Amino acid sequence: MPSKTLWSVLASILLCAVAGSPASRAEPTEQADPLGSWREGPAKQSIVDFVSSVVDPESDGFVPPKDRIATFDNDGCLWSEQPLYFQALFAFDRIRALAPEHPEWRVTEPYKSVLEGDTEHVMQAGKQQVLEMLIAAHAGVTGEEFDQIVRDWLEVARHPSTGKAFTEMVFQPMLELIDYLHSNEFRVFIVSGGGIDFLRVFSQDVYDIPPERVVGSSIGARFEMREGIPVVIKTPELAFVDDKEGKPVGIHQHIGRRPIFAAGNSDGDLQMLQYTTILRGPGDTTPRLGVLIHHTDADREWAYDRDSHVGRLDAALDEAPERGWVVVDMRDDWSRVYPAADP
Amino acid sequence: MPSKTLWSVLASILLCAVAGSPASRAEPTEQADPLGSWREGPAKQSIVDFVSSVVDPESDGFVPPKDRIATFDNDGCLWSEQPLYFQALFAFDRIRALAPEHPEWRVTEPYKSVLEGDTEHVMQAGKQQVLEMLIAAHAGVTGEEFDQIVRDWLEVARHPSTGKAFTEMVFQPMLELIDYLHSNEFRVFIVSGGGIDFLRVFSQDVYDIPPERVVGSSIGARFEMREGIPVVIKTPELAFVDDKEGKPVGIHQHIGRRPIFAAGNSDGDLQMLQYTTILRGPGDTTPRLGVLIHHTDADREWAYDRDSHVGRLDAALDEAPERGWVVVDMRDDWSRVYPAADP
Repeated sequence: MPSKTLWSVLASILLCAVAGSPASRAEPTEQADPLGSWREGPAKQSIVDFVSSVVDPESDGFVPPKDRIATFDNDGCLWSEQPLYFQALFAFDRIRALAPEHPEWRVTEPYKSVLEGDTEHVMQAGKQQVLEMLIAAHAGVTGEEFDQIVRDWLEVARHPSTGKAFTEMVFQPMLELIDYLHSNEFRVFIVSGGGIDFLRVFSQDVYDIPPERVVGSSIGARFEMREGIPVVIKTPELAFVDDKEGKPVGIHQHIGRRPIFAAGNSDGDLQMLQYTTILRGPGDTTPRLGVLIHHTDADREWAYDRDSHVGRLDAALDEAPERGWVVVDMRDDWSRVYPAADP
Repeated sequence: MPSKTLWSVLASILLCAVAGSPASRAEPTEQADPLGSWREGPAKQSIVDFVSSVVDPESDGFVPPKDRIATFDNDGCLWSEQPLYFQALFAFDRIRALAPEHPEWRVTEPYKSVLEGDTEHVMQAGKQQVLEMLIAAHAGVTGEEFDQIVRDWLEVARHPSTGKAFTEMVFQPMLELIDYLHSNEFRVFIVSGGGIDFLRVFSQDVYDIPPERVVGSSIGARFEMREGIPVVIKTPELAFVDDKEGKPVGIHQHIGRRPIFAAGNSDGDLQMLQYTTILRGPGDTTPRLGVLIHHTDADREWAYDRDSHVGRLDAALDEAPERGWVVVDMRDDWSRVYPAADP
């Protein structure tokens, strides 16, 4: 199935998402409960038990604040990712915006299909061609210009089926979980296969995670004096793929320490969960928690796992019981999905 | 002069330093002055004026805390770097430690010279050979193993002429400056040409800067399952050189925002200072400060600038007046150099 190849390319370089103005967070449904949108049950209990142990100086599982590192995947973990990583929709719109400067795109795949709105057909171009197009959609501008382009796009772009702004499609229970970890002196990072510069535009406003705590895939960058102004230009080559085996590497290079908590939702997060939770030997007694968000809610969001092109969850789901990872059933474990009232 | 080549190689990949147990900070000499080791004068005044403006909500120069990003070079800026970047001394010791597994090194330059203690002669091997040796000194171990190797070395290694532990050769006035910025809600980062993993071992204890706020040069890394344990192995290829034009790129990739304050001491910091301080146009009214530490104190530290192989300061010194960068005269502006009493 050729589309599978494209999806894995997309997965590799832009499995990300989108926002602009701060998402208004819903008030917790129970006043005193910081995890008010989580229904009582084993998933919620495991998270609360883990955090309670980590912060209790009397507990064997106490972890000093400096070591309370938590990492979250973004697409499908902090916000939705269907029918397509939101950053891919950004890239397609960007290609359309750039098209007047590139008349050759009208007759060259995969650009031609994008310009004609035939995104199904895009997938039939070769992997390398699609990759190059995605890079072209992100390169050739300064860091500041790219910020503004993403910001402008987030203002106006709407999800094709829900009609919501993309920043409204973040998961209310995960916003609460980030806040809960912050209030317990965790340092929370995003570790996403998506583009680092794309995510940083909205991570602070939407997730309360500052840009320097975002790890992601990246293209190259070059310093340049442009008419006397020093700028960093984004260049058209792939620099780092922060997915699968790349996630522990990205964590190593950016954070420099092993997390004690990691949350993901797909096989792209498998190695991050392994790296975070598998003990190193008898001396490794630090408590560790892995969380997998399982998309089971076709009514309020989407239901998919092993056969999905986007956000495929297969090997990690098989490995979860053995590793003790918490599998969150979106339908049963969450009383609310998005900050705004669910349909 | 062949040694120049070697020094620039060293500069390129390991212009760093060393520590282990926390450096005991001297008490400020004036109780109420957070910059007690800075003598009154234009340098100190410029720093205080800048910070006072940034934090004053009534000031035109007010900057919200989230944008108060400060970056510091390490070698020659936060600690000494003579007669050789301290990380080079680590690398040479590491080569000696690894030598029994590499009998071929006894007859191969530049390893042979290192093993014979003839560091002058090391420089006469080609640049590529020296680079490969330096990489070999840092690769082939997991992140955690490398941490421990550096930690152990810092415990026992002493500076060849002062006899001090390397962590005792940090600059007391710069520790005070970091504290001063922290207490004014700046986020302080190290942006060093030295190795990121090397610096992270002691950045928290010595500078109060957590590992994730260290940007530096890096070699590759690879995720691997080793006997069921997931590890990240440091691999023998150069991944990123965080020096000169690389510093703004490192800042872009790691921090994702332009700093408003940068301090350095050599031409390796020129582009970081430009990137931080040069206004983007009439709309760019944020206050910005660049600081250059000028090594002028042959009695208490070292005196060097334009002709030095290590930490050469030439073009940046020429550009300082035009840019309004504060040039700190170590001899005149600092009442104390190291945390322990000066000789």
